[in-house]
Order: sequence, then C-alpha cells, then structure tokens
Amino acid sequence: MQNVSIVGVGQTPVREHWDKSLRELAVEALLAALRDAHKDQLDAIYVGNMLSGELTGQEHLGALIADQLGMSGVEALKLEAACGAGGAAVRMGYLAVASGQFDTVAVVGVEKMTDVSNAVVTAGLAMAADGEYEAANGISFVALNALLMRRYMYEYDLVEEDFAPFAINAHANALNNPYAMFHRSVTREQLKHVKMVSDPISLFDSSPICDGAAALVLSRKENLNGNGPRAVHIAASAVATDAVALHDRMDPLWLKAVELSSQKAYAQARVQPADIDVFELHDAFSIVTPMSLEAAGFAARGTGVYMGRDGEIALNGRVPISTMGGLKARGHPIGATGVYQVVEAATQLRGEAGPNQVPNAHVAMAQSLGGVGTTAITHILKKD
Amino acid sequence: MQNVSIVGVGQTPVREHWDKSLRELAVEALLAALRDAHKDQLDAIYVGNMLSGELTGQEHLGALIADQLGMSGVEALKLEAACGAGGAAVRMGYLAVASGQFDTVAVVGVEKMTDVSNAVVTAGLAMAADGEYEAANGISFVALNALLMRRYMYEYDLVEEDFAPFAINAHANALNNPYAMFHRSVTREQLKHVKMVSDPISLFDSSPICDGAAALVLSRKENLNGNGPRAVHIAASAVATDAVALHDRMDPLWLKAVELSSQKAYAQARVQPADIDVFELHDAFSIVTPMSLEAAGFAARGTGVYMGRDGEIALNGRVPISTMGGLKARGHPIGATGVYQVVEAATQLRGEAGPNQVPNAHVAMAQSLGGVGTTAITHILKKD
Repeated sequence: MQNVSIVGVGQTPVREHWDKSLRELAVEALLAALRDAHKDQLDAIYVGNMLSGELTGQEHLGALIADQLGMSGVEALKLEAACGAGGAAVRMGYLAVASGQFDTVAVVGVEKMTDVSNAVVTAGLAMAADGEYEAANGISFVALNALLMRRYMYEYDLVEEDFAPFAINAHANALNNPYAMFHRSVTREQLKHVKMVSDPISLFDSSPICDGAAALVLSRKENLNGNGPRAVHIAASAVATDAVALHDRMDPLWLKAVELSSQKAYAQARVQPADIDVFELHDAFSIVTPMSLEAAGFAARGTGVYMGRDGEIALNGRVPISTMGGLKARGHPIGATGVYQVVEAATQLRGEAGPNQVPNAHVAMAQSLGGVGTTAITHILKKD
Repeated sequence: MQNVSIVGVGQTPVREHWDKSLRELAVEALLAALRDAHKDQLDAIYVGNMLSGELTGQEHLGALIADQLGMSGVEALKLEAACGAGGAAVRMGYLAVASGQFDTVAVVGVEKMTDVSNAVVTAGLAMAADGEYEAANGISFVALNALLMRRYMYEYDLVEEDFAPFAINAHANALNNPYAMFHRSVTREQLKHVKMVSDPISLFDSSPICDGAAALVLSRKENLNGNGPRAVHIAASAVATDAVALHDRMDPLWLKAVELSSQKAYAQARVQPADIDVFELHDAFSIVTPMSLEAAGFAARGTGVYMGRDGEIALNGRVPISTMGGLKARGHPIGATGVYQVVEAATQLRGEAGPNQVPNAHVAMAQSLGGVGTTAITHILKKD
C-alpha cells in the first residue's frame, strides 16, 4: 500500500447558510483545501453526504460538485453511512490513493439542513436507524439516543448533570474556532433551566441542525512537493459496523463497532490509546461521548463520564476531545462532520490550532459514527 | 496495485418483488455470490443504491445489509452515483482489494422501486439531473432523454423506427435469461402501436421500473484457492464525469464522460475497442445505446444506430450488447444495474451464458452510467 498524506484542509463556517446552496458550500470548502495544498488538479473527488436527496431533492452529488468546481471530467462519487458519511468519504479517498491508482484526490463532506422544516430533518435523520423495525414505529433518532442515555444512567447510577462537562468543554473550545456555529460558553447553572428535547436529552446534550462543508486534499506521501512540512500522515483507516436496531444488540450499552474500528486502527497505526494526543469523537448527543471513550479504550466501562468531571477531556487533559467545539458546538452538518473532524485533527498536528492548540500533539484520532454507533469509521493521523 | 478477481456472482430475478424488502433482496444476491465463491467470510461489503431514502425511508444501507447478512461487524458503506450507483460500488470494491488492505470483499447493488407510486419514482429519478436548474423547472429524467433523442434524430436525419433494433435485440436476449424481467420478444410491427412515454421516447425505448439485487465477491488474484478456473480478472476500473445539466454541455450529442472513462479503461487494460468481445452498456433509454457505442469508440459519430440495423450488436455480431437483456429487458433496478452488468459480463467470460453465450468471449466491458451519461463507470474484465 502507498502511504497517504493530508496536504490540504478547508472548511466553511458551520451556520444556517440560507444564502448558499449545497454545491456552493462544497466548492467553498474544496477551493480552500486546494489553496491550502497549492494544488489545482485532482484525480478524483469523493463526496460524503447523507440527506441531500431527502432535504434538497438532489442526488448525484459527485458529478454535481466536480462540475461546480470546474473539474467536470474527473472521477467523482458519493459515499453514505448515515451520520458517518463524511468519514466514509475520507475512507474512500484514502483507499484510492493507498491503492496506487491515484496521486492526488479530494474529499468533501457537505450537508444542507436548514432550508426545510425541522420535522423534515427529523424524518430524514430517522433513516440512520432501522426503518422497518425502529422508525416505522414512530421513534425519532434523538429518542433512540434518549433511551440509551436513560438506560446508561440507570445502570451506572448517574444523573443528567453528570454529562454537563461534555457540553461545557465543547462550547468553551468553540469560542476560539471561527468556523464553529456557537460562540458562547455554557455553564452548569444554565443546565437547570435548559429545554428538554427528548427526556433525558436536553438542548445541552444535542448537536444542532446546521449547514456546512469541509474538505481534504490527499496525496501520496512520496509526492508531497512543497507540502512536506505541513503534511499529516494517515496512519490508519478502519471501519466496523454493529446491528442497526438497538434492540438487536446483545449489549446496547457497549458500542461494539467503536471498539472494533478503534482496535483495527490502533493495530494499523501501531499505537495504543495512551499514544493518542487528540481524539475528535462523534459527540452528536452527550451520551455518545462516554460510550465512545469507553469502547475506544480510554475509560473502563461505565466510567466515561468521570473523564468529563475530572477534566481529562480538556485541551491540557489526558485525552483532549472536541478540541474545536465538537459536534455539539462546532456543529453537526451530518455528512460534513466526519471531514470536519479530520480537518481539525490535522490542524492540531500541524500546530495551527491557535488558542486551542493541544501541546505536543503528534498523534490524533478522528472517529465518525453513523446511527447509534452502528457504523464507526476511524482515522489515526500522525505528524512525522 | 494488487490484481483483483471476481470469484463469485449472484443475482435475484428482476421483478416487482412485492413480497421482499430491500434488505432481503440484497442478502439473497449476496448469499448467492458467496455460495458461488465458496466463501463464508468477508472483509467488507460495499452497497450500490440510489433511492432507498426517497422510496423506502431507509439510508445507512451498508450496516443494514451487513447486519441482515449476519456479518455485522465488517466494514460496510454505501456508494451513490445516481443510476450508476452499482458501478460505483464495484469501483470501491475494486480499490479496496487493489489497495492490498483487504483480501476478499463483496459488492451488492440493490433497488426497491415498486412499493411506491410511479410519480414518486419519477420525482426520485429526477434527482439524477440538476435539481436547481433542470428538475426545479419540472422536467423529468425521461423528458431530458427525449430532448436528446429528438435532437439526435434531427441532426442525423433519423426516425423512431431506426432505434427499434436495440429493443428487439434486448428482448430476444432476455428470453433466455431466467433473471430477466421480461420474457417476451418484441417486433418491429408492434412499434406502430406502442404507447408514447415522452415523445419521441416510447415504451419500446424505455427500461422498466422494477426491483432487484446483484452481487459480486472480489478477491486478490493471488488468493484464489479453488476458484481459479472460474475467476475473472478485473483488468480496468475507471470513472469519469461530465456536466450534470444538458444545457451546460458544449456538445450534448457527445457523451464526454463515456469517452473519457472508456479511454482510461482501454489504457489500463491495454486493449482497443476491437478487442472487446462483450459490451454491457447502459441502455436505460434507447437513445443512450448509439451514443454510448459512438463515445466508447465502436461507431463513428451519428452512426451508432446502424450497428443495430446491421446486426452488429447481436450475440454473434461485432459488438454484442445487452447479452442477457440489458436495462431494457433484464430490467433497470437503478442502483443494482451496474452490478448486474458486471455479473453478466463475468458470466459470459466464464462461458456460462447458456443459449446466449457469445462465442470465444475473452474480454468484456461493463459500463454503468449516472444521469444522462453524466457519470460513466467502466470495468473491463478478462478471462486468463
């Protein structure tokens, strides 16, 4: 296999972009990544997106975005793995370069969610779950996560407030990220008055509906030209899956796909959890954070929330997470999120994270999830 | 790059499968391919599908189908490129094995179209076109092809009847394919009474709305075990794109993506058009057939229809096409079609095509298109 490096990153701010279409957002991120990489040619473009068909009446994003970029002609395809679609596109870009067939490809994740009503978005997001055995019974995606959070609280004797450090950390980090959706800190005091979304999941526990796009340029490590000093190596790329329906899992409180995907990635990169300096995890709902920390090997079963309480997730903590705001505060434009995570992890390894820079960051992990931890897509990055 | 072989093929009949769900169809095809390959383990599953979200309220097909197959845990992702989604999944499976990361993966294309009204399907198919500049103005996908056919007839001084040999050939070949949707021959006489769909496109010129799934097992050539004698080598895998909107093309009568993708594939496989013994092309509408034959290098500009008139597309002709019925008569379950094409091309090279066997078939080409020739995905297969 060829070694694969990230030689350019780009992103749009995460916002309610009522003045920009899906293709415009995607191209804005791609052009930024191409400028960053000092490239003007690509062998292929891989697009991560979940809901463009349902929300904007447009499939076929590969060709559409290549066309809008002015690169009509190149290979262009779309990947989907529910909320992990962005990670899936990174995976495809990695394989295309690793195979040796291509020198330089781009990956872009994009989602446009705010042009339709929240009810339409909610129906769309339920398509990440099992349509015939979960969604058909009327349960929404947030409600599935609420069931999981309730059970987790019951089994491990926790209360809602125990999850607060995750939102507080994410919002604090987003303050310094100009691309983040939210630029306001939140406090434990506010938790007492927060609106409930799906009991016990409150607004504090939920990532927002939003628009955005993020992009990467990937190239063979042997082919870096002037990009060497800022290039970041992709040391691992691994995907695993679990049963889609929560009721089909032997143990709903253990994210098996996260464990499998993390373990495969650690083996490929020859690292241990203790070697990970930055962990961009998929904090779509705050319940996902401790469960991801546990299944990925950073905390014992049922103890993930204590990493929040004890400050271990802070920028100077043992396992910094959501360093640019995470899904909670940077925002979660579904199919774009997995690419934002890799952009941010690479930015940390380049030492370009500004006030949010994690000291001595050499190894970073980005993990994109589809469904309730159903698909887990893990990339480990290293700065040589 | 590792050499990639097809070691197993599987397919469901193309029908209106009202008694089977999308996941059941996919698993039926996958199990058939696994049996054919004598395999019971996979490293990954790549799914081709266009419209499951819009038509059945289900995204996240990768994990869903892996789960239904009893292989929850493995890598599983979905690819989409409009009507070329099946070809896109083959492309991803090829890269995953060619990269050297995986030994054995499966590809499955699946579409379930007949559980909803034709109006819903028509709206879904329009998402292959440019949503903001074509579909938003009310034009359907068949109408776009009708505009193209009308212009082609005008430029090259043709009438509807000149296209009849394509449907007659496809239906004749489908008679001997138990998996084909239609088992009735059609005649030139019937053309006089055929219903118009979108003038000048009649029922004779249109592929049907239907359900189906097809699957492949791909493996490293060095790793064939007992499958050697029946294995088929993937000698080329190439994708190209064109402008999505017809009005954005300098020359709407020339399928640039077909030309680019074919030329890339010929170079990879080190063959010329004259070396191709079987060409499974994307005859979604009969206008696509001559335009594909021209852009892929089998006929001069504006002369593709004469290949039909002169019998060159027959099983014993110069360039046999639609050898098992093609999209017209085997059927066109959108995201499955690109995989059906590769299954049929491999079947020809194995010499297992029964009464439809093309004599001395050593090199076969399968070409999956998304949109009006917007995305072209070409695979060339060889039997060593």
